[in-house]
Amino acid sequence: MSASTVLISEVGPRDGLQNCKSIMPTELKKQWISELAACGIREIEVGSFVSPKLLPQMADTGEITRYSKTIKGLEVAVLVPNLKGAQLAIDSGADKITLPMSVSETHSIRNIRRTHDQLIDEAKAISELIQSLPENERPHFEGSLSTAFGCTLEGQIAETTILKCAERLMAAGCDEVGVSDTTGYGDPNSVKRLIRAVRATIGADKLTGVHLHNTRGLGLANALAAYDEGIVTFDSSLGGLGGCPTAPGASGNIVTEDLVFMFESMGVKTGIDLDALMKTRETLQNGLPDEELYGFTPLAGLPLGFKKA
Amino acid sequence: MSASTVLISEVGPRDGLQNCKSIMPTELKKQWISELAACGIREIEVGSFVSPKLLPQMADTGEITRYSKTIKGLEVAVLVPNLKGAQLAIDSGADKITLPMSVSETHSIRNIRRTHDQLIDEAKAISELIQSLPENERPHFEGSLSTAFGCTLEGQIAETTILKCAERLMAAGCDEVGVSDTTGYGDPNSVKRLIRAVRATIGADKLTGVHLHNTRGLGLANALAAYDEGIVTFDSSLGGLGGCPTAPGASGNIVTEDLVFMFESMGVKTGIDLDALMKTRETLQNGLPDEELYGFTPLAGLPLGFKKA
Repeated sequence: MSASTVLISEVGPRDGLQNCKSIMPTELKKQWISELAACGIREIEVGSFVSPKLLPQMADTGEITRYSKTIKGLEVAVLVPNLKGAQLAIDSGADKITLPMSVSETHSIRNIRRTHDQLIDEAKAISELIQSLPENERPHFEGSLSTAFGCTLEGQIAETTILKCAERLMAAGCDEVGVSDTTGYGDPNSVKRLIRAVRATIGADKLTGVHLHNTRGLGLANALAAYDEGIVTFDSSLGGLGGCPTAPGASGNIVTEDLVFMFESMGVKTGIDLDALMKTRETLQNGLPDEELYGFTPLAGLPLGFKKA
Repeated sequence: MSASTVLISEVGPRDGLQNCKSIMPTELKKQWISELAACGIREIEVGSFVSPKLLPQMADTGEITRYSKTIKGLEVAVLVPNLKGAQLAIDSGADKITLPMSVSETHSIRNIRRTHDQLIDEAKAISELIQSLPENERPHFEGSLSTAFGCTLEGQIAETTILKCAERLMAAGCDEVGVSDTTGYGDPNSVKRLIRAVRATIGADKLTGVHLHNTRGLGLANALAAYDEGIVTFDSSLGGLGGCPTAPGASGNIVTEDLVFMFESMGVKTGIDLDALMKTRETLQNGLPDEELYGFTPLAGLPLGFKKA
């Protein structure tokens, strides 16, 4: 059931950078993204089409997206909060558009000022926009179930609510739904349970990717649990960039280097050159000299006699 | 197959402290151990009966062992490198004696100046000593297969060699064999494979515990894999104490706080009060003001609405 190849979707340029106080210069972002792609990373979430007033770190997402599209073979993914963002994403040529829907309605209202109904209306409008394009120009449209393993405002969210959100996103026109552990509340059992439940509701082929965090150190264990359930796409961020703003010192995203090391050690192909990947930390650190990078494998180095899958 | 209850064996006072440059004062060690036991930790490896010249951090192991034996309900474990250490352990009243055997003979010769044959002779002598005691005074005797997932000198060790070591330790009189990822080379698949192979060779009831490291960040994922195989005893260290001396900044041991959080979140009982456990970090830090403590859960805090198993 588990795959012999997985897709590591690097989200550092989006989820990482948007959580940093300092802003990475556009030229260094481009250099970093092209270096990541050169290591064998096939999908990168390069930015977020949000208001530059809210997230000045993402102000150059249009330019970054257009640049990324010049990199051969790279799947260029972006996050959008609404129809306006989706239009900008399409104008820039993005291959994949992700609309996050917080299954915690409290969180949804506080964070993006949208009730579930309003968010679903946004999803429908985005879907209509995409359908209005010629078939070969339509980006892949994913709805992401955020706070799926719990919310810092509401705590655990009822599974029925989560499944309803998944169904509504699909009905609104999403091609696929993803599951996000925004708060790092997930554990291997809850990850497995929710993947099974969502797949039972919308179909196994409509949930292939997870976005897990490492806030409480369970990132790789949760990724392993998801992999055991047949998940093939894993979001992670180089150097674990994107510390959780509510927990100083706590890492947010799964560290790409450690995730790739885990899979390659297990004999699961990622297509990524781990030595080259670790070297790209220098570019990232140059672009963000004040940010702390995470990751154990880069510090310890690869095992003696290590062979990639 | 997986258990509803696991035993977390805290190895900080041994594997943690012996890898620190600074020496924790005896009185603070006692305070820390009694606090750990008060949190619900039922087994603690309190020290190592090695030469104080080699490891001055362990010079008070006799006193610490005798003190720990006064704590009601606590299983007091110690490491011994040879017969002399075992005699001291027995004199101090240890409940459990672990003799490490490096499956890498190169490592064994360089580290403890023993070939495999010599190490097995040591195991036999310890077993004879134990058998000479009245039945109710005999400590549990475990042989630990160290560098089981690879060695920094030899790389991967042939599985036939590891299984031969396991068989010989059992034949020498060990009650049980443990598997140790001394170097942090293991991955979830190799952990599962080796557990199955060792159990197929010496019997499932003769391998119930693993000692995994977090050197490359895979500690919890590997623990999850071992748990899925039916392992019930997991070594870990508070604050991940015991950084790998060959990799500055890289954590060695699995962080007890994160491991307990993982199991409790999964609904697997550890019997440990996680809030109280996290408070014992203060005592540890007081005893070792210069050491860096690891762990994500202590920084992030417990999830809203978190319930222990």
